[in-house]
Amino acid sequence: MARDLRYLVLAEGKFGPMTSKTANGCIRYSPERVVAVLDSTHAGRSAREVIGFGGDIPVVASVEEGMRHGPNALLIGIAPTGGQFPEEWRPLMRAAIANRLEIWSGLHTFIGDDPEFAALAREHGVTIHDLRKPPTDLPVAAGRVRDVAATVVLTVGTDCNIGKMTASLQLRDGLRKRGRRVAFAGTGQTGILIEGWGISVDAVVADFIAGAAERLTIDAAKDADIVLVEGQGSLAHPGYSGVTYGLMHGSLPHAMVMCAQPSRTAINNQPWVKIPPLKEFIAFHERALEPLRPSRTIAVALNTFDLAEPAARDAIARAEDETGLPATDPVRFDPAPIVEAIERFHAARAR
Amino acid sequence: MARDLRYLVLAEGKFGPMTSKTANGCIRYSPERVVAVLDSTHAGRSAREVIGFGGDIPVVASVEEGMRHGPNALLIGIAPTGGQFPEEWRPLMRAAIANRLEIWSGLHTFIGDDPEFAALAREHGVTIHDLRKPPTDLPVAAGRVRDVAATVVLTVGTDCNIGKMTASLQLRDGLRKRGRRVAFAGTGQTGILIEGWGISVDAVVADFIAGAAERLTIDAAKDADIVLVEGQGSLAHPGYSGVTYGLMHGSLPHAMVMCAQPSRTAINNQPWVKIPPLKEFIAFHERALEPLRPSRTIAVALNTFDLAEPAARDAIARAEDETGLPATDPVRFDPAPIVEAIERFHAARAR
Repeated sequence: MARDLRYLVLAEGKFGPMTSKTANGCIRYSPERVVAVLDSTHAGRSAREVIGFGGDIPVVASVEEGMRHGPNALLIGIAPTGGQFPEEWRPLMRAAIANRLEIWSGLHTFIGDDPEFAALAREHGVTIHDLRKPPTDLPVAAGRVRDVAATVVLTVGTDCNIGKMTASLQLRDGLRKRGRRVAFAGTGQTGILIEGWGISVDAVVADFIAGAAERLTIDAAKDADIVLVEGQGSLAHPGYSGVTYGLMHGSLPHAMVMCAQPSRTAINNQPWVKIPPLKEFIAFHERALEPLRPSRTIAVALNTFDLAEPAARDAIARAEDETGLPATDPVRFDPAPIVEAIERFHAARAR
Repeated sequence: MARDLRYLVLAEGKFGPMTSKTANGCIRYSPERVVAVLDSTHAGRSAREVIGFGGDIPVVASVEEGMRHGPNALLIGIAPTGGQFPEEWRPLMRAAIANRLEIWSGLHTFIGDDPEFAALAREHGVTIHDLRKPPTDLPVAAGRVRDVAATVVLTVGTDCNIGKMTASLQLRDGLRKRGRRVAFAGTGQTGILIEGWGISVDAVVADFIAGAAERLTIDAAKDADIVLVEGQGSLAHPGYSGVTYGLMHGSLPHAMVMCAQPSRTAINNQPWVKIPPLKEFIAFHERALEPLRPSRTIAVALNTFDLAEPAARDAIARAEDETGLPATDPVRFDPAPIVEAIERFHAARAR
């Protein structure tokens, strides 16, 4: 992946703490790559004013205005359910291609397969990168991960979009600061954009979910002692749970970090699915791996962005009581309790 | 699906009780469609002599010999791991297309995407049917199945290729004989070939596994009081478990039938994965559905093809003891114990 990318991030009408997952992940973990965000409904503000972080990155009203900040690529900044391209963005895409911006997309709908965009891109000599296009030579998983010496840690969660990627990246940074050789295996479009490699496991043909996870984990382990595999979905999610389950069986984590949002009691947009009690849900995850590899949940990562600080601290204490595990919000507070749990687990394995 | 199909079934070097799943399923459940099987290593024998059923269907040595039996289509009779086309079959495919046989394939590799076959098919005016090509408009699952009045029964299993489809079809026939309005929802290439419709759930993009299962179940329920959903894979299978899990969360079965092979103690070709005890594994399946829909396992279908009859009867009695559920081998013996368990469950739901 080229290292001189300067993204204009497209989030028209969607830039916000919970509605522009890809934009937000990129701003949090690769802010140096983001020159501006395009959302006319927030134009004139800064990223920090809209999503709470991202400093002075400007929000602009149009592609033309964005061009003044010197981008060389347009990054599609959302990850909607089903991954379709929002048709109302078509004029913005035309303008971006006409301005010779490379297109980077993690949508399910491949931009390069769209006849209009493909023709326009050819005309202007623009490259389209569809990050979800999976490798064509994936294997069916068969436990090859068992040959890997590294400690494999997978983030799992009570729902989608609950902070699994963010937690993994905070833990990556925390472990790196302590001198650990750690790799982040990105499994979704944002994680891939941030790290520069990975496989979108939810975009592969269903038979190869675990095979993709297996290959990713093995590749990540080549130069690392600890591999953090980015989790996807949730075993309780009616739409995406198959991806979560396959990811578990392909990556065969030695340890898991359970991600949850204390204020969320049901699956997002699926109020009929109540999130099981944390302790029970953790036990279920361990049982799911039992026939393949004994695995333990070693910490809880809470997403408390919507709670006042005292309520957040309370929620963390309650999660620790309920599960008997170290817990924290690794974005809002010091990720050390989870980082140390991983270090202890890794040290115990090495013995 | 056209009803006048006369298949020459291609199983070169692979025709056998466990190695030609698609051929065998088609021969068992649509024998009237099969005019001959192509496998030069068994040429001159009958289907019954090679796989134990299928009567006098002849096994032939070549496409030319097969043509004497009047086929109008070539059916690819295997479902190998990974679903790749066996390259050594290329000359046989060329001959079939040259003889103007339609091609029916359930492989992952789409025959229609192969440049040589596609060109040859165009030249000879031959249609290629790639049964695994999934619909392009699948939804992300969201519990829409809950609006369906029919009783939904899913076959689950301890491994792949253990008899889930066969059990479902025996139960379909048993329920039909008793006058029940029952539908079979095919989820794999063989089931689809036999029933004439369905979606290959393991061939869809991973995010849409449950969505495919949801659509299938809803469609099947339109003219039925009982829907039998064909299970896929196993929650203990390292490669395919994500498909199984997604299929469960998409179809949301009211009841499950657990399929097992008493002589199999580990996953096929994966001796490192021991199959969990039946009772424990059943409880795990029920727990997997708990957040979405309460579901019960109501019977056990055993595949005893490799046991002498007394050993088979013993295994059935042991399974009943261990699980407290009715059990039988619905292919070898009368499927009535399972058929009746479904009828009782359905009647209790209606009350």
